[in-house]
Amino acid sequence: MRETNHPVRVALDAMGGDYAPREIVKGAVLAAEKNDVEVMLVGPPDAVESELTKYHVSRLPLHCVESDGFINEDESPAQALSRRPNASIAKAFKMVKAGEADAVVGAGSTGALVTSAIRSMGLVDGIERPVVGGPFFGIAPNTILMDCGVNVDPKPSHLVTFAVVGSIYAKRLLNIENPTVALLNIGAEENKGNKLTRETYPLLQKSGLNFIGNIEGNEVLSGRANVIVCDGFVGNILIKFGEGGIDIIKNVLRNKINSYPLLRMFKKPFKVLSSAMFGDNGASGGSGVGDGLIWGVNGIALKIHGASRAPDVAKKIAQAKLVVEMDLVSSLKSELSAIRSQLNM
Amino acid sequence: MRETNHPVRVALDAMGGDYAPREIVKGAVLAAEKNDVEVMLVGPPDAVESELTKYHVSRLPLHCVESDGFINEDESPAQALSRRPNASIAKAFKMVKAGEADAVVGAGSTGALVTSAIRSMGLVDGIERPVVGGPFFGIAPNTILMDCGVNVDPKPSHLVTFAVVGSIYAKRLLNIENPTVALLNIGAEENKGNKLTRETYPLLQKSGLNFIGNIEGNEVLSGRANVIVCDGFVGNILIKFGEGGIDIIKNVLRNKINSYPLLRMFKKPFKVLSSAMFGDNGASGGSGVGDGLIWGVNGIALKIHGASRAPDVAKKIAQAKLVVEMDLVSSLKSELSAIRSQLNM
Repeated sequence: MRETNHPVRVALDAMGGDYAPREIVKGAVLAAEKNDVEVMLVGPPDAVESELTKYHVSRLPLHCVESDGFINEDESPAQALSRRPNASIAKAFKMVKAGEADAVVGAGSTGALVTSAIRSMGLVDGIERPVVGGPFFGIAPNTILMDCGVNVDPKPSHLVTFAVVGSIYAKRLLNIENPTVALLNIGAEENKGNKLTRETYPLLQKSGLNFIGNIEGNEVLSGRANVIVCDGFVGNILIKFGEGGIDIIKNVLRNKINSYPLLRMFKKPFKVLSSAMFGDNGASGGSGVGDGLIWGVNGIALKIHGASRAPDVAKKIAQAKLVVEMDLVSSLKSELSAIRSQLNM
Repeated sequence: MRETNHPVRVALDAMGGDYAPREIVKGAVLAAEKNDVEVMLVGPPDAVESELTKYHVSRLPLHCVESDGFINEDESPAQALSRRPNASIAKAFKMVKAGEADAVVGAGSTGALVTSAIRSMGLVDGIERPVVGGPFFGIAPNTILMDCGVNVDPKPSHLVTFAVVGSIYAKRLLNIENPTVALLNIGAEENKGNKLTRETYPLLQKSGLNFIGNIEGNEVLSGRANVIVCDGFVGNILIKFGEGGIDIIKNVLRNKINSYPLLRMFKKPFKVLSSAMFGDNGASGGSGVGDGLIWGVNGIALKIHGASRAPDVAKKIAQAKLVVEMDLVSSLKSELSAIRSQLNM
């Protein structure tokens, strides 16, 4: 656990997301009202302050921090950050580096957030690229898929780091004591799979993690594994396939129900069943603690969905506070270093 | 179209599958009764003939062909075939090679079937390994996923051959005039993806096929692409994930419906909706013509599901007949050779 005498300080990119700055500022106000957390709203002063005048904030732990513009979703992150090194998201990470904030939360460009995070905070020893993941399927809330899209051509050792990250995620954020780890593959036997999975299997076996072997596609949602490790290409396609599939199933069923007069009476119970199964956000588990965490950077960075409204923003700020208090980065460093020395990685 | 004066002759592995020889022999009888097709039942005479005595077959175009035993599902195909070079599946392919049969149908070990096919018939020029695929999702009956599991570490040129095979499949078996071809990827832009997809994109662009670019996971079931090309690792995981997901969704819904007395009245309409959406066999499109075809071998080989019963066996024999009459292998050879010369492959 982290030891400190001040409340957690979250630097929030006031200009990121589809409804920025309006919903972001409103979310910051909600969070500051409810939680013992200090929020720094980072953005161009005129834009942020004109939103802030809508609320009674004089007694809230809420500050504005000036940035030089912001990064658009459609810009190349690296180029845009070179042109505007003090854009809102970059400035937020600089505050963490300077010891003025404990975490960054942003709803803007993922590329700009990850690039800024790496530039300001660096990566944890033994991590070459950040990794994202989480329990993305509401049907399997205790199963984390890792990586979900950052690392498209990883090496076997990278998959081991995904397994370490996933295990910490499961232990600390989902309270699973000894999380099972599986390798996503096309057969149960050790020698099955492509070059990457065949070479990763023995490493996971020697890692000291609770490795249960390969898992095939049909078992992803079975709950047998708490952490499922795969390359980011496969992870991304699987997540999106799940989201797309559920949307299509919902639509087809809705049309079927609407087109048969006799079936219309089942509309409401179907709706109830459907949201019990899938939630209202497609496949995404969505709003759990840890969702949106950029793992592997040497600090706490959380990405929120671009379409987030104020309550989601407030929720994410509260989660950032929790994650800072848990001191997850230290856990990652110590577990990773132990496994690396075991595997001579 | 194939020109010949005799009915199509199908060599059927009488000993492959979970219910062999009983259901296989029964399926052969059904097929010979219904269709203008000659069936050769390949297997150890005692096993096959004792099954045949159950039926009136003296006037049917049905013959027994002696084999030296058969290959078990759990044997290493290559080793088992070396030990028993005249096992039922190997003997069936030798009949094709000798001009005594036009196609092979088998429900036994996929490995043994593919290995025997390659040994007896060889591969089509320009194909390095066979490929399997088809419209696996009932929700998207006009979308073929190719490859579904044989080629786990393919090269870019292999993905082009999958696209050619998929296009012929769509044109000839699904009657789609100018099938759209897409590359499964994690972003829409040409430079997105892993090394394999980034290198495959320009080849598909130059191929002369109706290439519409990248498609992401959420669009797999949208119907936008008739042929979706991916490596066999991703394809296998996606197919199985779909099957597993649908099974789980069905179970959870069934349990929910059973556990609430008020919901029990919706049991039947749900069942109707569910089978309209998913069929009764999970995600698998299942029994269409072309399903189970081993593409790329220089002849017609069809794999049936191991759990098949007599009616499925009969259906597959009828489909084998159709596929022989279509002369798909010649189509594949000519289209592939045209595209290979265009791409200097």
